[in-house]
Amino acid sequence: MGNTPIHTASRHIAVIGAGFAGLTAARALKAAGHRVTVLEARDRVGGRINTKAAQDGTPVDVGGQWIGPGQDRVIALAEELGVETFPSYEAGENLCLYDGKLMRFAGLMPPHEPVGLADAEAIFGALDALAASADAERPWETPNAKELDSITFEQWIVRTANTPEAAFWMRFLANSVLAADSRELSMLHVMVYIKAGGGLASLIGMSGGAQERRFTKGAQHLAERLADTVRDDIRFNCPVTSITQDGSGVTIEHAGGTLRADRVVVTLPPALAGRLRYSPALPGQRDHLTQRMPMGACIKIQCFYDTPFWREDGLSGMAVNQDGPISLTYDNSPASGQPGVMVCFIEGEDAKEWTGRSAGERRTAVLNALARLFGPRALEVREFIELSWLEEEYSRGGYAGFMIPGVWTRLGPALTAPCGLIHWAGTETASRWPGYMDGAIRSGERVAAEITTALATA
Amino acid sequence: MGNTPIHTASRHIAVIGAGFAGLTAARALKAAGHRVTVLEARDRVGGRINTKAAQDGTPVDVGGQWIGPGQDRVIALAEELGVETFPSYEAGENLCLYDGKLMRFAGLMPPHEPVGLADAEAIFGALDALAASADAERPWETPNAKELDSITFEQWIVRTANTPEAAFWMRFLANSVLAADSRELSMLHVMVYIKAGGGLASLIGMSGGAQERRFTKGAQHLAERLADTVRDDIRFNCPVTSITQDGSGVTIEHAGGTLRADRVVVTLPPALAGRLRYSPALPGQRDHLTQRMPMGACIKIQCFYDTPFWREDGLSGMAVNQDGPISLTYDNSPASGQPGVMVCFIEGEDAKEWTGRSAGERRTAVLNALARLFGPRALEVREFIELSWLEEEYSRGGYAGFMIPGVWTRLGPALTAPCGLIHWAGTETASRWPGYMDGAIRSGERVAAEITTALATA
Repeated sequence: MGNTPIHTASRHIAVIGAGFAGLTAARALKAAGHRVTVLEARDRVGGRINTKAAQDGTPVDVGGQWIGPGQDRVIALAEELGVETFPSYEAGENLCLYDGKLMRFAGLMPPHEPVGLADAEAIFGALDALAASADAERPWETPNAKELDSITFEQWIVRTANTPEAAFWMRFLANSVLAADSRELSMLHVMVYIKAGGGLASLIGMSGGAQERRFTKGAQHLAERLADTVRDDIRFNCPVTSITQDGSGVTIEHAGGTLRADRVVVTLPPALAGRLRYSPALPGQRDHLTQRMPMGACIKIQCFYDTPFWREDGLSGMAVNQDGPISLTYDNSPASGQPGVMVCFIEGEDAKEWTGRSAGERRTAVLNALARLFGPRALEVREFIELSWLEEEYSRGGYAGFMIPGVWTRLGPALTAPCGLIHWAGTETASRWPGYMDGAIRSGERVAAEITTALATA
Repeated sequence: MGNTPIHTASRHIAVIGAGFAGLTAARALKAAGHRVTVLEARDRVGGRINTKAAQDGTPVDVGGQWIGPGQDRVIALAEELGVETFPSYEAGENLCLYDGKLMRFAGLMPPHEPVGLADAEAIFGALDALAASADAERPWETPNAKELDSITFEQWIVRTANTPEAAFWMRFLANSVLAADSRELSMLHVMVYIKAGGGLASLIGMSGGAQERRFTKGAQHLAERLADTVRDDIRFNCPVTSITQDGSGVTIEHAGGTLRADRVVVTLPPALAGRLRYSPALPGQRDHLTQRMPMGACIKIQCFYDTPFWREDGLSGMAVNQDGPISLTYDNSPASGQPGVMVCFIEGEDAKEWTGRSAGERRTAVLNALARLFGPRALEVREFIELSWLEEEYSRGGYAGFMIPGVWTRLGPALTAPCGLIHWAGTETASRWPGYMDGAIRSGERVAAEITTALATA
């Protein structure tokens, strides 16, 4: 190609998915001198991050929304792009409805009777200590990996919990942190996830934890600012159907036509990546991985009120609800405190059931649950915005894909190992903060470096 | 449409998949006066049934091959179409390599030391009794369904087995009967599968059980004769990519073009059915079902010898091998006994590992294992035919899809509930003999009746 080395080094890289992983990868690859094309199925960037507007214009994150300490990459990105955040509201007491009893409490645990309380605190400690032994980079090299990957989280709970309270909090943890059921999850996966998120306190905390701050204009604002760095390279409404590799590159069929590139980055969660057609077909190990990483199940609901009335009662808005269908609530009002917004989650098993009910049934059940927690004013809702991520065609669940037993130890390397000219990214592939925006960004950075290295040695 | 009522009742039904389910459905729908088009991804009928020819012309079933009593629909079909079968070879003693000890035995169990033997026999009895309580038609209505669906088969094994022998045989059962790992399987699913196959003796037996007879010209011969009844309606090399429903019918995109029909039957296993694109998108419950029914993992290997030399030693050829990678062998010689054919299975976890190794490594490991079981003559192989079903693009595993914990009780009805004009069939949907040819045929009959009823009431 003659005497223009800068051009001979430049390649055309296709990126599938304009979430944080894809946008980060595209930006980094472009900065490295490559041409990129981002194919996005939806008409917007952000993927599992999506900010809508309430009737009064308040930004409403119907997808992921929080960031916290240790999520260094997303924090750095927000700072670099000048995207403003504010602290989540957490003044006042929390609520817990357990065994028919509504309890107010400060800190992590409600006033269970002493034996249950001590056991619940002990099992958090036991899980945290076990998780600390996990190898988040190479989970299959965790001590006793095979044994830990042979049992479900539920199995560990039954073996370890001495009281119903301890078991309750562990199942609640699976639901609220992973949007999955304890009986679906590999124990090793839970450990790896906790380790990768900096430990339990980091994962579940507000101040000092993963729920510490929110984006003033909604989390999609950050995705939009990131997208601005590669805006002209994004093609919307282009769901990909197939990837064909040959000796010299890849051909990608999508709803908008056909794209030819030198390499391709697939940022979809494995369950969805498995739904593309590949030619040649993917290796059996990679394919079986995609069959064994189902998506979590989550319905996120936001109720709008004239004011955050619970604050007047000295309540934070955070509530844990054993009775369902909502298992967890937070005050999700904007920084101004007007309007009052209560965010509610239906997760795991309950989400699988309630996604099949009518919107009217869900609304009634949610408002009744809120009234039981926060009193009758909870019924005076002025706007009700819900999203079942199970019904989202281009996510088919949330927050993320997770490993059932046996996957990490037998198929784990297939999560990130390139298949020829296909490279894998997405929050599920991160060894720090998988399932979070931060993990998605890290995966985009990792895959861009991986491609740069591959091209340098090719 | 005037005065020709017979024609106004006729509809065009598309059938995706030309395995036993699709061919049966197509034939029945055609007999009911409908027009059918069968879209098949491969260049042959049969799906997970596939007969090849050895160098000497011997038919070799690289997929499913056996039928047995209680499989009334496949037996009736073979009789009707004049397709010949012959009894599987089972004279002589079986082998079991366990704890480094090679044991010859007759009947079900090798001569373990007495405590282990009694416990292994007891756990078979316990599992069979528990399975008898399952509701195979509506698994979620099985007594204690929720609890049984909350644990893995492995969990039940650990809880129930008092000796390593009992645990070994249960894990072997998961591998050999379901091609799955005990730690992946819902306990409820195992019970339902056993019940649907008529009990353990029926599932694992040769004479009197599911391995009783084989097809003289290979199992695909039956599929071919069945295909002859709808031959002109089958379109090969037409993998389907999308199904779009509108008010008046369905539009199916496939590699050969676009097909318009009134309704469509999808016979693919749920993991693969989930990979088509649907417009409108499938309901969340159906989609999450497809994410939670991974395919079993199986590599089937057949070794050809001049004669079935093991018979001279008074051996049946059936061997159970704790050392792996092959876990189970049978004499698979043709009825004539010439050549000698030994069929070997690598299943579950081992299949997921060994599918990633080179063909040479697998051949060496398999032959060494056979030599340890049957002596050095096993090394004198004249032909070696293997198929890893994990690598089959249009099956991506075998024998069948199975349920992980939580699926039957929360998402079970979505396995067969039509989604608008889309009807679901395939062996996984059968309540008798799921995972077998017989179940596939039953599902084809069921879906044809379902459509006939739907059209009559529409």
